Amino acid sequence: MTRLRDLGVSPGLLPAGLYNAITDVPGVRVGHVTLIAGEGALRPGQGPVRTGVTAILPHADNLFEEKVIAAVYTFNGYGKATGFEQVRELGVLETPILLTNTLNVGLVSDAVITCMVRENPAIGVTTGTINPVVGECNDGFLNDIQGRHVRAEHVQASIADATAGPVLEGNVGAGTGTACCGFKGGIGTASRTVESGYTVGALVQSNFGARRHLMILGVPVGQHFHDRLLPGSAPALKTEPGPGSIMMILATDAPLTARQLHRLAKRAIFGLARTGSVGTNGSGDFVIAFSTANRRLHTPREPVSTVTIIPDEQGIAINDLFLAAIEAVEEAILNSLIAAETLTGRDGHVLYAIPHQELADLLRGSPASSTGK
Amino acid sequence: MTRLRDLGVSPGLLPAGLYNAITDVPGVRVGHVTLIAGEGALRPGQGPVRTGVTAILPHADNLFEEKVIAAVYTFNGYGKATGFEQVRELGVLETPILLTNTLNVGLVSDAVITCMVRENPAIGVTTGTINPVVGECNDGFLNDIQGRHVRAEHVQASIADATAGPVLEGNVGAGTGTACCGFKGGIGTASRTVESGYTVGALVQSNFGARRHLMILGVPVGQHFHDRLLPGSAPALKTEPGPGSIMMILATDAPLTARQLHRLAKRAIFGLARTGSVGTNGSGDFVIAFSTANRRLHTPREPVSTVTIIPDEQGIAINDLFLAAIEAVEEAILNSLIAAETLTGRDGHVLYAIPHQELADLLRGSPASSTGK
Amino acid sequence: MTRLRDLGVSPGLLPAGLYNAITDVPGVRVGHVTLIAGEGALRPGQGPVRTGVTAILPHADNLFEEKVIAAVYTFNGYGKATGFEQVRELGVLETPILLTNTLNVGLVSDAVITCMVRENPAIGVTTGTINPVVGECNDGFLNDIQGRHVRAEHVQASIADATAGPVLEGNVGAGTGTACCGFKGGIGTASRTVESGYTVGALVQSNFGARRHLMILGVPVGQHFHDRLLPGSAPALKTEPGPGSIMMILATDAPLTARQLHRLAKRAIFGLARTGSVGTNGSGDFVIAFSTANRRLHTPREPVSTVTIIPDEQGIAINDLFLAAIEAVEEAILNSLIAAETLTGRDGHVLYAIPHQELADLLRGSPASSTGK
Amino acid sequence: MTRLRDLGVSPGLLPAGLYNAITDVPGVRVGHVTLIAGEGALRPGQGPVRTGVTAILPHADNLFEEKVIAAVYTFNGYGKATGFEQVRELGVLETPILLTNTLNVGLVSDAVITCMVRENPAIGVTTGTINPVVGECNDGFLNDIQGRHVRAEHVQASIADATAGPVLEGNVGAGTGTACCGFKGGIGTASRTVESGYTVGALVQSNFGARRHLMILGVPVGQHFHDRLLPGSAPALKTEPGPGSIMMILATDAPLTARQLHRLAKRAIFGLARTGSVGTNGSGDFVIAFSTANRRLHTPREPVSTVTIIPDEQGIAINDLFLAAIEAVEEAILNSLIAAETLTGRDGHVLYAIPHQELADLLRGSPASSTGK
Repeated sequence: MTRLRDLGVSPGLLPAGLYNAITDVPGVRVGHVTLIAGEGALRPGQGPVRTGVTAILPHADNLFEEKVIAAVYTFNGYGKATGFEQVRELGVLETPILLTNTLNVGLVSDAVITCMVRENPAIGVTTGTINPVVGECNDGFLNDIQGRHVRAEHVQASIADATAGPVLEGNVGAGTGTACCGFKGGIGTASRTVESGYTVGALVQSNFGARRHLMILGVPVGQHFHDRLLPGSAPALKTEPGPGSIMMILATDAPLTARQLHRLAKRAIFGLARTGSVGTNGSGDFVIAFSTANRRLHTPREPVSTVTIIPDEQGIAINDLFLAAIEAVEEAILNSLIAAETLTGRDGHVLYAIPHQELADLLRGSPASSTGK
Repeated sequence: MTRLRDLGVSPGLLPAGLYNAITDVPGVRVGHVTLIAGEGALRPGQGPVRTGVTAILPHADNLFEEKVIAAVYTFNGYGKATGFEQVRELGVLETPILLTNTLNVGLVSDAVITCMVRENPAIGVTTGTINPVVGECNDGFLNDIQGRHVRAEHVQASIADATAGPVLEGNVGAGTGTACCGFKGGIGTASRTVESGYTVGALVQSNFGARRHLMILGVPVGQHFHDRLLPGSAPALKTEPGPGSIMMILATDAPLTARQLHRLAKRAIFGLARTGSVGTNGSGDFVIAFSTANRRLHTPREPVSTVTIIPDEQGIAINDLFLAAIEAVEEAILNSLIAAETLTGRDGHVLYAIPHQELADLLRGSPASSTGK
Repeated sequence: MTRLRDLGVSPGLLPAGLYNAITDVPGVRVGHVTLIAGEGALRPGQGPVRTGVTAILPHADNLFEEKVIAAVYTFNGYGKATGFEQVRELGVLETPILLTNTLNVGLVSDAVITCMVRENPAIGVTTGTINPVVGECNDGFLNDIQGRHVRAEHVQASIADATAGPVLEGNVGAGTGTACCGFKGGIGTASRTVESGYTVGALVQSNFGARRHLMILGVPVGQHFHDRLLPGSAPALKTEPGPGSIMMILATDAPLTARQLHRLAKRAIFGLARTGSVGTNGSGDFVIAFSTANRRLHTPREPVSTVTIIPDEQGIAINDLFLAAIEAVEEAILNSLIAAETLTGRDGHVLYAIPHQELADLLRGSPASSTGK
Repeated sequence: MTRLRDLGVSPGLLPAGLYNAITDVPGVRVGHVTLIAGEGALRPGQGPVRTGVTAILPHADNLFEEKVIAAVYTFNGYGKATGFEQVRELGVLETPILLTNTLNVGLVSDAVITCMVRENPAIGVTTGTINPVVGECNDGFLNDIQGRHVRAEHVQASIADATAGPVLEGNVGAGTGTACCGFKGGIGTASRTVESGYTVGALVQSNFGARRHLMILGVPVGQHFHDRLLPGSAPALKTEPGPGSIMMILATDAPLTARQLHRLAKRAIFGLARTGSVGTNGSGDFVIAFSTANRRLHTPREPVSTVTIIPDEQGIAINDLFLAAIEAVEEAILNSLIAAETLTGRDGHVLYAIPHQELADLLRGSPASSTGK
């Protein structure tokens, strides 16, 4: 698996965490289930299958019992993300975050309930219900999206198998079938640490953009690749799927309130913009941000809780976190692109991996390259 | 089926439509599937079943091809309604609105996709995807809510069987197992017509409130019934389920923009407040409003559309529509309560119908009674 | 000064604080400057003057240095309230809240800056700027509103003279010239205490509604008074000014976050609805809520602050606060109406006080009356 | 006055309008009043003065009588912009947009009322009131901001002298004293035309960012200039004012609803991000967008209006407008920077113009340069 930094560039001003992944935020785990099956012509409901599911778990304990502070930000609501109303109201997340394809949101949401009920049999019996949070991108260019091939067992496995440490990127999980700026996209992740010792991690499911808009570290590489026939390239139609969307997940161990996490979530858009996105009409661009600090108990032990907060008046500390979110999202998107491999899907549709060597050459002169810095 | 007006009171200042139902808005249809099965102790995943699904169809044509202008308003987001992000962004509804129980939202949402794909096989193949809009209330006091007993065939049937004309209320469809102000609640509907000739219709799934808060046409009837043992009443615990939620649907044929429908949707809260609701922490209070005027085509024929709009500067006309929404929601809630019948569910839990004769006596002195007016 | 309870009714379920005023929240002070001058025909820019300014101070210390947690909720944005953007973003209030008339917001806002700069000469020199929060209602039915007669010295005096303890109501300060439900309105206040020991106080500037909509404790008194010629009444036109607006201020000592104060602020709408408001098109209905707990320092001493919070999961405690806000707003509105006295303004326009004895008779039979309860 | 294109670069994919200015949208006019007086040490309330006011007029007719469809978008609400509540609610603008400094918003807002009342003497007498929309940036690094030197006559003049055609940029009007990315900033403008024939124009008041973040057409020129002593440079403190804000105004003749203008306004953030902004904590980033199509009359002649709309389903047309907004904002910011000239203000504080020749050299290799393209 190739990542941006393997091309010799070291983007941004802040240092990355140990794995340069969302899992650098202590306790955060990620699991993928990748579904690839069949070839040839699309038979709606049957295949070919190029999809999957990705689970992000804020911590290793019971998420229903120990909720995490969270916020959502919808830049472009042209998408089917679910669970957002309750996160806005209560400022907490009480399930893993699941990512999948657009038409699979209902089934995945239902499967999350199954998982949560298994762990918390009182749900709906002697206590309240549960709010699944699921995001999506449209992978229908490669995948039989009508088939809704992600089922309960896959969701269950993505949660059960979630791990800390390095995160698989590219054509995995919910990124299996997605496209990014006219190339193969997918899952990408990155992280940044700030002087105060906190970490901000990002994980994206990239599916947005037209090739000609792609910008990497200030270099308009998309204009270089635009309209160029790659070796074995299929007609333009096939390499330029419709404008898609992007799901951006931010995790941090900094003690922020839901209001502040909303501010953090908005900064993800700057990271997205740095890669050349123009926020097209059809691109559902959503951000979910959570903090692992100050868990909120389903059954509080005391009438009043004591929590820690970085006040907004600590402007430098807040700015560091904002910059960390921007850089982490930017690099996560680029990692999703660079880690992805060429994939053929339904009807012979091909999404090509961005050519690494050629890209490295283009970036060499950039000020962000190891030597240029 | 008893309705508020059968008790001899005629609430509000504006006249009701022909059926005093959301279906008085031309083209709007409603369908219910009611699921009642089993008795006795709760066996999670099996029963007893006291739930259902209700479909509201804005018009009789292809909703994906001919979308209706719409808005959502979340007063209290402590709920699991789905599809709201896209309605906010694009200002249209492209599916029927489905109502069901809290844990069933995922499956119902998935079933809507199945229905829409059947009618529009290009979805996810050669055109975009689809945004199901599903609301919910928690009927777990009577129902095996973990069981998620509303399945695709029920959703399909609720849509297929939707009809214009009179609407069944009370223990039907998504209202089968719900509670309202300590009594049996359910589905209710009402409508108002305004001088300019337009109609506003409301349909609610009522599941909110404590008995002592119930107010009907200014009479605090809840205080009368509070703590009173009804004939055959079970202990207080069983007749006071936890505070629930309410879904409020508004339909109109007035030509309003999405921004204006959002304004209309907010007025539903005044109708809710008139019944004594105090907007409790756990009550997910959601409004969805749509107009049947100015349909928006999935594939526009012209680069620019011509639409009609009532400008906000026509303040009297706008106020009439606001008042119509308030009165229709208020009466829809009261109809949901009065139409509902006593129902026993899981673990012998009972929700009692509000006693009609006693209620009629209480309201007799009210200025809104036929004679008192 | 007559208040609602002087009519022998005791509304709501929760006990009022000592003064039944927003000043029951420890530290909160209120100041008014009332401007009444001239009679006869309107000479725009000169008079007659029937207006004023009201200041609400969250605490007695330096508000810029020790900001209070706050939230705003705009139910109907048809108004000119200012300072809301920054409160939404940062969740704090750093000035007194000022209320005045619609066209005077700019000058009052400027005067707040003058006051704050005098106390904090570093503003704009070596530290940041200041965010004045000013609300308004249109008193132009009685007042020469074009004249903008509230000047810096009045704002200064309203702040300097603010006091704890009993609050003047009716035709004072920003309520001098306002109307409520076709009668003379003005400033009103009330409070509630909850079992956990916290207090919620409300102060309103009432200027909304048509006479026929007025409802008091469930009794539709507006229908009784509607179209009735009062002794010495002028033609109907003069006693029914156009639909106005309402500013609602909530204070509490409960430790709530800005997100939770936003939830609290929304409940003010239920209190408003209980008085019969129908949320007309032209009625700018705004709520500002603040907590005196957990002050936030302009210059934090530590990188991380420790704050106390009532978690939303303490649903009963949250519901108590919600109910307190509803009841306090409802009673504050009624106090504004009952405390107000008949006032003649420009062009002989008259706003009549609601007749107390007649109102008391109407309420006697109400379940909220002292005897009826 | 030097503009970006004078440096030999031609940014973006879409063609600019005739003047490459917001005034390319037919009917739009811009007026500035620039206030420069005094030198030396700051005497709060007296000077030195380095400030001004800029007026943007959507059309040449009576704006109160013929309102324009509008939307606001607050990316970071840490600012004092006023008038936003009513624009959100009603979707119209009924005054010119005024820009000034942070502490001058109240006085400028009041002056707008004076201007509007002069033209419409019925305001506040026989018809409703008026909603001034004023934005701001903090120019206190150079200017005696406590002095609030922009008075009613300056506002009046900025409106009266507004003209179509070329727009002065840099140290003019509200941009007189502002900073951008560690250099002198100010007013900038640009425009784009799209295939469907519509124009999108932008005007910004730039005051944001740190020098090291500045990016121009993908070239991180800020890193080049960072920490470099410019000829005659004062200590670093003086050339790096605190992070400021940005006001972004978008105008178009495309027939968009308020909801769609809100979508357009959000895209301004992509233009901002392209210049390297990281959306710092203290940067109030606000967008106001209006359309000159489909004016809404204060006194509608008919109960229902007929308007034209580009449906969102015309995705390509919408995307073109989005891209136009992004490119226009990006270039407007760069123009504000390049047009600005070195200026010394209070206490000898200096803001340096970005060195043009050096910048041109840096951009020469960029793919956006005339030769590089």
